[in-house]
Amino acid sequence: MSKQDKPFRPKARRPRGFEDKTSDVVRAERRLIRAACDVYESWGFEPLETPAFEYADALGKHLPDDDRPNEGVFALTDDDDQWMALRYDLTAPLARYMAENFDTLPKPYRRYQFGSVWRNEKPGPGRFREFIQCDADSVGAPGPAADAEMIALAVNVMQAAGLKPGEFVVRVNDRRLLDAVLESVGAPGTDAGALQKLRVLRAVDKLDRLGEDGVAALLGEGRKDDSGDYTEGAGLGADGVKAVLRFVNSGDASREVALAKLEETVVWSEAGKAGLEALHAIHGVLDRLGVSDAHAAFDPSIVRGLGYYTGPVYEAELLLDLESDKGQPVRVGSVGGGGRYDDLVARFKGQDVPATGFSFGVSRFAAALSLLDRYNGRDRIKDELTVVLALEPERIGDYFALAQEIRAASGRPAEVCLAGSKNMAKQMKYADKRGARFVVMVGSEEREAGQVTVKDLKAGAEAAKGIESRETWTEERPGQVTVAAGDLIATLDKLRSAS
Amino acid sequence: MSKQDKPFRPKARRPRGFEDKTSDVVRAERRLIRAACDVYESWGFEPLETPAFEYADALGKHLPDDDRPNEGVFALTDDDDQWMALRYDLTAPLARYMAENFDTLPKPYRRYQFGSVWRNEKPGPGRFREFIQCDADSVGAPGPAADAEMIALAVNVMQAAGLKPGEFVVRVNDRRLLDAVLESVGAPGTDAGALQKLRVLRAVDKLDRLGEDGVAALLGEGRKDDSGDYTEGAGLGADGVKAVLRFVNSGDASREVALAKLEETVVWSEAGKAGLEALHAIHGVLDRLGVSDAHAAFDPSIVRGLGYYTGPVYEAELLLDLESDKGQPVRVGSVGGGGRYDDLVARFKGQDVPATGFSFGVSRFAAALSLLDRYNGRDRIKDELTVVLALEPERIGDYFALAQEIRAASGRPAEVCLAGSKNMAKQMKYADKRGARFVVMVGSEEREAGQVTVKDLKAGAEAAKGIESRETWTEERPGQVTVAAGDLIATLDKLRSAS
Repeated sequence: MSKQDKPFRPKARRPRGFEDKTSDVVRAERRLIRAACDVYESWGFEPLETPAFEYADALGKHLPDDDRPNEGVFALTDDDDQWMALRYDLTAPLARYMAENFDTLPKPYRRYQFGSVWRNEKPGPGRFREFIQCDADSVGAPGPAADAEMIALAVNVMQAAGLKPGEFVVRVNDRRLLDAVLESVGAPGTDAGALQKLRVLRAVDKLDRLGEDGVAALLGEGRKDDSGDYTEGAGLGADGVKAVLRFVNSGDASREVALAKLEETVVWSEAGKAGLEALHAIHGVLDRLGVSDAHAAFDPSIVRGLGYYTGPVYEAELLLDLESDKGQPVRVGSVGGGGRYDDLVARFKGQDVPATGFSFGVSRFAAALSLLDRYNGRDRIKDELTVVLALEPERIGDYFALAQEIRAASGRPAEVCLAGSKNMAKQMKYADKRGARFVVMVGSEEREAGQVTVKDLKAGAEAAKGIESRETWTEERPGQVTVAAGDLIATLDKLRSAS
Repeated sequence: MSKQDKPFRPKARRPRGFEDKTSDVVRAERRLIRAACDVYESWGFEPLETPAFEYADALGKHLPDDDRPNEGVFALTDDDDQWMALRYDLTAPLARYMAENFDTLPKPYRRYQFGSVWRNEKPGPGRFREFIQCDADSVGAPGPAADAEMIALAVNVMQAAGLKPGEFVVRVNDRRLLDAVLESVGAPGTDAGALQKLRVLRAVDKLDRLGEDGVAALLGEGRKDDSGDYTEGAGLGADGVKAVLRFVNSGDASREVALAKLEETVVWSEAGKAGLEALHAIHGVLDRLGVSDAHAAFDPSIVRGLGYYTGPVYEAELLLDLESDKGQPVRVGSVGGGGRYDDLVARFKGQDVPATGFSFGVSRFAAALSLLDRYNGRDRIKDELTVVLALEPERIGDYFALAQEIRAASGRPAEVCLAGSKNMAKQMKYADKRGARFVVMVGSEEREAGQVTVKDLKAGAEAAKGIESRETWTEERPGQVTVAAGDLIATLDKLRSAS
């Protein structure tokens, strides 16, 4: 195919909003995914992998960004003209899977899944259209004990990721409490006015970003943002706005105190009572599991943006003051969230199938962890990497055998330099670019004497700091030793343990 | 969103050609991916993750299935009306990445990647439109040593996957040898008649499936298959067909013998000499690495279906006689392949960038391994799973604490039964459906006596084989013991070590 009639040279570029992840990022994400999956498996959750595509009608329309084409998803038609769309989360596909396999699965069905999801959103800095989520869900358990389990799991994952007390919190609420507040100000509750309710939810969900005034505008008439775009409001009156804001501020660092405050606000409503009862039960289980107030708090400002939640909702937040590589403060905020979605499977089945789950945003979470000093070690592979120079190309097989010997003896990575030049300086430059720890050299002199030369690039760089003249450098050759070929492995081991 | 104006009940179903993978499959695939990645990392390859989408022009048109819409890919237009397509392999995205980051990357750049690829093909039994590939590539190394490295890597991965000598072989060839044969019969060589050459390649690639007569037809006039579909032939004359068939049959179990045979056939041609020289060099490196003839053989019938290969090509094949769960023989054949593709990055750069790589079909390979007895152990998780029954729902927190205790002490998975009924028989049924090893029960009696009851479902099932009457069963309660609450962990340990 290389010779085409019309030579065409495409530009090497990615579609906007998509990223290439290099080794540091990939390794940080894998570390986090493994920590989360180990926790999920230890709680009896099983892996499931659903496909990237679902029929569009099975996915439903739950994304907040509903002003985009195809409601924010990437969609296309199949051969038979049915619309398929790439999944925008891992929850909607689970609902489809559960409905399709309802009779054969144990109930509750606990599963975890991680993988890419795609959103056809406006790309921006740090806002990607493909990112990894890692979810655990429990389908078929109606009681708040299942919600408490998800919250404890989320706390466990934050801990397994290496976070310490005070560095994170999982904030918990129940949407039915907000329903009670809306009832109290004469706004429709659960059974009608779904759009108004959704607008209230989305307004409250923006408290973090817009502050009280911005949310008040969105709860009332509407709001024009800095770019001049206007968002229609939920249409609550002044009293309603005030009641909602009072409610969202009624959280407390102590779960007991928060429960007492909520009692006064919402207990006269049926929805409110149900929500409060759920929070009491969740509190009871968390207490017995040793999950403290510091790790899981009740916070009525948590509502989650997705439309499908029906009861308890939760959000995992980092409380760290992080700095970017350039010393800029980085605000991470929420790295995951979830809640109860009792109606999602019912969409297919027409019968009640209670469900609750939690989802971590792996890319965002791992990126934040990478900014912590404790993860700032050098890339494992590179620090242990040995590059064997190919100084006599006709003996390339010998160099491969040497690299093999190092791998077999130490379990550490080793590679032959295939930079395509027998020039030593060029090959050293390659080893340097690779960030290798050791270079192994066998030129004609070493070969005839049955020797190898080992250069410890780390020790060399250290030593070089104290050497002032080029002459001394060439004479002393810091970090470099020539030994009998049979002593190669022992020499590498010695150099490694010395640093 | 649960209350819509028009209630709509979608059918829970997947798009054709896509599959849900349950825990056994997911675990088998992960085991294989981990084995392969460990090998790649030990050879100094670094992970890279490119996005699912590429611009269509960057992907190029290399799929054999070019009679499908969009040339076999899933494509859609972005906001700015540019065509994007889901990747159909991991090689084309690597070429784009390499061209985009050429100046900053070390050369050669060795990377590995695994992930889903998508092909808009006609779905069929065992033929999926989304599957996982796991690739290693070396970009920037022109010599056959880099090809030898890829072949040795492939052999290492097959071994790391648990395969023994004689259970697999990596077959190696060089496409330039076939060019020499085509020259010899007056057919165009490398520089012209790309379409005819492609048809020859695809014909030879089907030798396995169609046999010599089928291939002969495709090399000549064309072939009508069983369904009546007609495939146009490469248009070679009788002598040409004969020469190609003689060539593809000139392999040998010994690499030395195969090289000698090839010498006679192709050495008078420049292309042939270059290809033969590459195979000699590959043989030299493989020998020094201890890769035997049994693990890597020269086989001129290997050409690979993709258009972009330019030199050495290789294919990993399973030699196992496998049987499906139903006792049917399963022919697996090729589980991976690759080769040199020196023009793929040049498409973007307009300058030569040599490259070579190998790709495993993870789903197909893992499915085959799962049919081997040695992998037929029960699911790790389930065999170790403990289900704590929730016999007194108002004490649910205590059951969670019990499960936590088991997890913390043994590192093994434990879960609370949240089946939504306090009925013991129903909860036992759940534990059974989950395939749990142990059930832990604390009813009011046990609680008041400070005891727990442990049921070993595995021992119980064993013992039950020897029990004939229901009365004896109820009396003996095989595999069941009641102990002091403090002895729970020790009891589980004892039961585990007894089996």
